[in-house]
Amino acid sequence: MLQVETGQLVSELETLASFSDAPAPAVTRVVFSEQDLRARAWLRQRYAAAGLKVREDAVGNTFARWQGTDPSLAAIGTGSHTDAIPHSGRYDGTVGVLGGLEAIRALQRSGFKPRRSIELLMFTSEEPTRFGIGCLGSRLLSGRLDAARASAMKDETGRTLDEVRATAGFTGTLDSVRLAPAYYSRFLELHIEQGPLLERRNIDVGVVTAIAAPASLNIFIEGHGGHAGAVLMPDRHDAFLAAAEIALALESAATNTGAIDSVATTGICEVFPGAVNSIPSRVRLAVDIRDIDQTRRDGIIATLEECCKEVASKRGVITKLELINRDEPAWCDALTIEKTKEACEKHAFTYELMVSRAYHDSLFISRVCPASMIFIPCREGFSHRPDEYSSPEALGKGTTVLAETLASLAAES
Amino acid sequence: MLQVETGQLVSELETLASFSDAPAPAVTRVVFSEQDLRARAWLRQRYAAAGLKVREDAVGNTFARWQGTDPSLAAIGTGSHTDAIPHSGRYDGTVGVLGGLEAIRALQRSGFKPRRSIELLMFTSEEPTRFGIGCLGSRLLSGRLDAARASAMKDETGRTLDEVRATAGFTGTLDSVRLAPAYYSRFLELHIEQGPLLERRNIDVGVVTAIAAPASLNIFIEGHGGHAGAVLMPDRHDAFLAAAEIALALESAATNTGAIDSVATTGICEVFPGAVNSIPSRVRLAVDIRDIDQTRRDGIIATLEECCKEVASKRGVITKLELINRDEPAWCDALTIEKTKEACEKHAFTYELMVSRAYHDSLFISRVCPASMIFIPCREGFSHRPDEYSSPEALGKGTTVLAETLASLAAES
Repeated sequence: MLQVETGQLVSELETLASFSDAPAPAVTRVVFSEQDLRARAWLRQRYAAAGLKVREDAVGNTFARWQGTDPSLAAIGTGSHTDAIPHSGRYDGTVGVLGGLEAIRALQRSGFKPRRSIELLMFTSEEPTRFGIGCLGSRLLSGRLDAARASAMKDETGRTLDEVRATAGFTGTLDSVRLAPAYYSRFLELHIEQGPLLERRNIDVGVVTAIAAPASLNIFIEGHGGHAGAVLMPDRHDAFLAAAEIALALESAATNTGAIDSVATTGICEVFPGAVNSIPSRVRLAVDIRDIDQTRRDGIIATLEECCKEVASKRGVITKLELINRDEPAWCDALTIEKTKEACEKHAFTYELMVSRAYHDSLFISRVCPASMIFIPCREGFSHRPDEYSSPEALGKGTTVLAETLASLAAES
Repeated sequence: MLQVETGQLVSELETLASFSDAPAPAVTRVVFSEQDLRARAWLRQRYAAAGLKVREDAVGNTFARWQGTDPSLAAIGTGSHTDAIPHSGRYDGTVGVLGGLEAIRALQRSGFKPRRSIELLMFTSEEPTRFGIGCLGSRLLSGRLDAARASAMKDETGRTLDEVRATAGFTGTLDSVRLAPAYYSRFLELHIEQGPLLERRNIDVGVVTAIAAPASLNIFIEGHGGHAGAVLMPDRHDAFLAAAEIALALESAATNTGAIDSVATTGICEVFPGAVNSIPSRVRLAVDIRDIDQTRRDGIIATLEECCKEVASKRGVITKLELINRDEPAWCDALTIEKTKEACEKHAFTYELMVSRAYHDSLFISRVCPASMIFIPCREGFSHRPDEYSSPEALGKGTTVLAETLASLAAES
């Protein structure tokens, strides 16, 4: 009889949240920061306590394996990430790692013996906070990011990924991270919805059928600085006002597609020199554009490019766009979707087929094996903020469905 | 015969610029930083070498006095500031301090004996960088800033002015900074124009008749954060997009007065949490609004307040305005203006009467004694940026006019 220990899971989520550079309830845990390394060490202890065999690759992706009865078969993968953007919450990503661990322990307690090995994967840097690109670990695992390019990527302080990971104890070339063909038979990620739909409709579980396609860009704007009192308005080439027009135009471009699935965000605005009495001479904007339809999303990017040109010409500033990533949407694995639905039905949990508008490691893992996701409700859809919350009930149900589905997939020949 | 040593002045400006937290040619010298304290120590040596008697007050304003033959008469003051905003240049403020020193030395070398003492004043924190308010030293000297309020002002790290100045070695209560009535007979400040007019018209010296009235405000915007992928566009309350609209509306408000002297700048935009995949939940804008007409300037502030309300209502965010300062314009001293014109004529320098659109310590000193300013051309009007530049010729002419005018004023009974 499968029995998830929700109290244990909640308590472990709480402990993981304590490894943070922000005061509770906020969580800040940036990849390879001291808090991230402390969290990783604690996780390795939890894995060992569950009898899992742990391996880490050159970028710090961590694999914890429950050996199956037929080791010649490809494993079933599950997992997510534990890094957290500045001042965010405690459920994004962590639920997939600690929920995955509890799913394995619950199966162990039930006496289940998997035929295929079940492997819990903690992906490095799903969040783009430090190196500007999201899903770093899963991009490298799937070969969707060039290893040499990744090695040279720099953080804000100018340190390369290679320097930073070496300091954190992860050595070897990034080429070695790529998964062998057919390493996993299937991959399944448990995650909070990060949107309000499940809660609004009072649904227990979201069975994900597709993952939206994200793109992110830097926009560099260069104007003319000067004294805020002395340079008259007609003589100005203010980089921040240009940035303001671009951000508002991006909002319009996303709204004007007419599709509810088009979203665009300007999340970063750095103003230089950043003094009250100095006209901004340079600005960096970082923008994020997503859609489940790639053509429509690329249309927003094209509109943004046009707008940058117009603003540059109108204001006498220079604008430069730098594409960081522009990924394809993913369709989820039909067999896993069926097994997940069966698991819900077995426990009389309500479920709904849905699209993931957020960006997950499963998007990249889907390039190398059939992948799928399970969503659980989170309060008001809040995510990436300190009041992110999923109830113990939701966590328990999601973990139960994950465990049942993993068991079912691991039993396949 | 009065002979200014321009080479010496240029070399001293260069040395002062080397006390900087930014790589040359940029200068960053924030009040009470280590570089500011090193610059102050070096200046005290230069004052001592000129035989001046040095005194410092509780906020670090530094007075270097050349004793007159009749010490019972009120002194003639001159001077400016040496702090520099992040990534700025080497002439703003420093020309008034080192030019004032060279003017005194030139008068000493010429054999001139002043009847009134001539006192060179280095004002603390003319720039608002650290404590958010400009002209800190001269506001306290003129009694235009409450000492208790000033003591409690905090820098970005949360340290109060009282803590910071004590660490820098400046003790005593801030009440004690206020100048005694009739401490100065007159005050005259040499400064770069920080605008392009003198250079464009090929004029040697600007004789300032009025100083524009500055106001500065913080605007705090609070929206709702969330995941950049998962929160749909109609559900958003994005603090940064609200900020973008406010900054553009402020620009329009300044442009729409129809007066060339109206200027408004949004120099700071801090976005929280500041991650590419997170909807901005909070923003602080710092804005600066100036005009030579106070009513017109206050009209721009009123328009800004209206706009904040409209944006708040339209976007479902909260906006809060905090007025940091709202000062009155100043008219310059008629006698000093006459003496300055005479000095120009004596040396056959061209001059023009003009308005100071930038913000100076003289604005506050004018509250307690007749004050005036001398401007010299600077390249393309650039200021508050690393390529700020005044030629040795311009420096020499300005310093000569300053010395002649100080001599003339110091000879008055």
